[in-house]
Amino acid sequence: MRFSPLLEELIESLRSLPGVGPKTAQRMAFQLLTRGREKGKRIAHMLNLGMEGIGHCQRCRTFCEAEHCAICLAPQRDSSLLCIVENPIDMMVIEQMNIFKGFYFVLMGHLSPLDGIGPEDIGIPELAQRLTNSSISEVILATNPTVEGEATAHYISELAKQQPQIKVTRIAHGVPLGGELEYIDGGTLAHAFTGRGEV
Amino acid sequence: MRFSPLLEELIESLRSLPGVGPKTAQRMAFQLLTRGREKGKRIAHMLNLGMEGIGHCQRCRTFCEAEHCAICLAPQRDSSLLCIVENPIDMMVIEQMNIFKGFYFVLMGHLSPLDGIGPEDIGIPELAQRLTNSSISEVILATNPTVEGEATAHYISELAKQQPQIKVTRIAHGVPLGGELEYIDGGTLAHAFTGRGEV
Repeated sequence: MRFSPLLEELIESLRSLPGVGPKTAQRMAFQLLTRGREKGKRIAHMLNLGMEGIGHCQRCRTFCEAEHCAICLAPQRDSSLLCIVENPIDMMVIEQMNIFKGFYFVLMGHLSPLDGIGPEDIGIPELAQRLTNSSISEVILATNPTVEGEATAHYISELAKQQPQIKVTRIAHGVPLGGELEYIDGGTLAHAFTGRGEV
Repeated sequence: MRFSPLLEELIESLRSLPGVGPKTAQRMAFQLLTRGREKGKRIAHMLNLGMEGIGHCQRCRTFCEAEHCAICLAPQRDSSLLCIVENPIDMMVIEQMNIFKGFYFVLMGHLSPLDGIGPEDIGIPELAQRLTNSSISEVILATNPTVEGEATAHYISELAKQQPQIKVTRIAHGVPLGGELEYIDGGTLAHAFTGRGEV
């Protein structure tokens, strides 16, 4: 790219997008320059607005440009249910299914002592306060079924059980629909057997 | 994404990058927000600078923020050689090989009458003038070996041959190094046979 230092810098900056290597960044830059300058400026505009303006909901900690997100403000939702997820994408995925009508609490991560991520970093103090203050009757733990996710779920379940009126549940783990047993890993299959239900 | 209209707009705008679908755009937006706000702002800054500032070299038509690109201004290059390529990426790929020391002319496309792309759109008038004015002794046609690329190469060869001192050459086509004959398409193999050389 010796012919244009500015273009070189543009390509270099696009490489900091996740999953974008040198070839992809090159293609993006050339395509935007050739037939999408307006699109390029719009991306720049939205990035500026987003990076400056998007903070966290004061209630559930998800990404949000206002003080409270639209879900926390929805009056028709069931305030007795609180679903704990690791990040806003998980919250979005659950929302897209349209089966859960309670509120969320987004940890924005999981407990990971080795990386120095402790309870304060994932909003446990705010969560603890929320559990005492409100009319919650069930806490649904929907953290990922990874070592850190399970540890986080365990930690929060201990916390929630201090409130006697709260029932703590964990989303079910087992063989996914459409999955074939021969391709399922042993851990999942063991979970599916332990958690078997009567038909 | 009902919880944040701004985030939704950001994701939508990232989708206009080539090769970026809804899931990738989501991941990009969340990752930038979580641990790369400075990176995000830098991308926005470079996109703004690039979309506004990058034009075309007055001489070779490649992308360039100055009047002439660094290659056209290099005094040590061989002004008797002119290589014709379809786009700036091709020029860059040839430059990276470090074997060509002449100048370039970038068509920024190829002839395609069905899409309404005629000689004026790919800079043929400028090229014709450059061929009469300068000390060029060889024109190397390095357009793509596609139907349009071949047609464009043919058109330019006819134009260049009007200057008796100019030799017109085409880059060789055949079996790529490391390729296996059984996986090569018939057209390429036919080319490789027709263009065979004595060893």
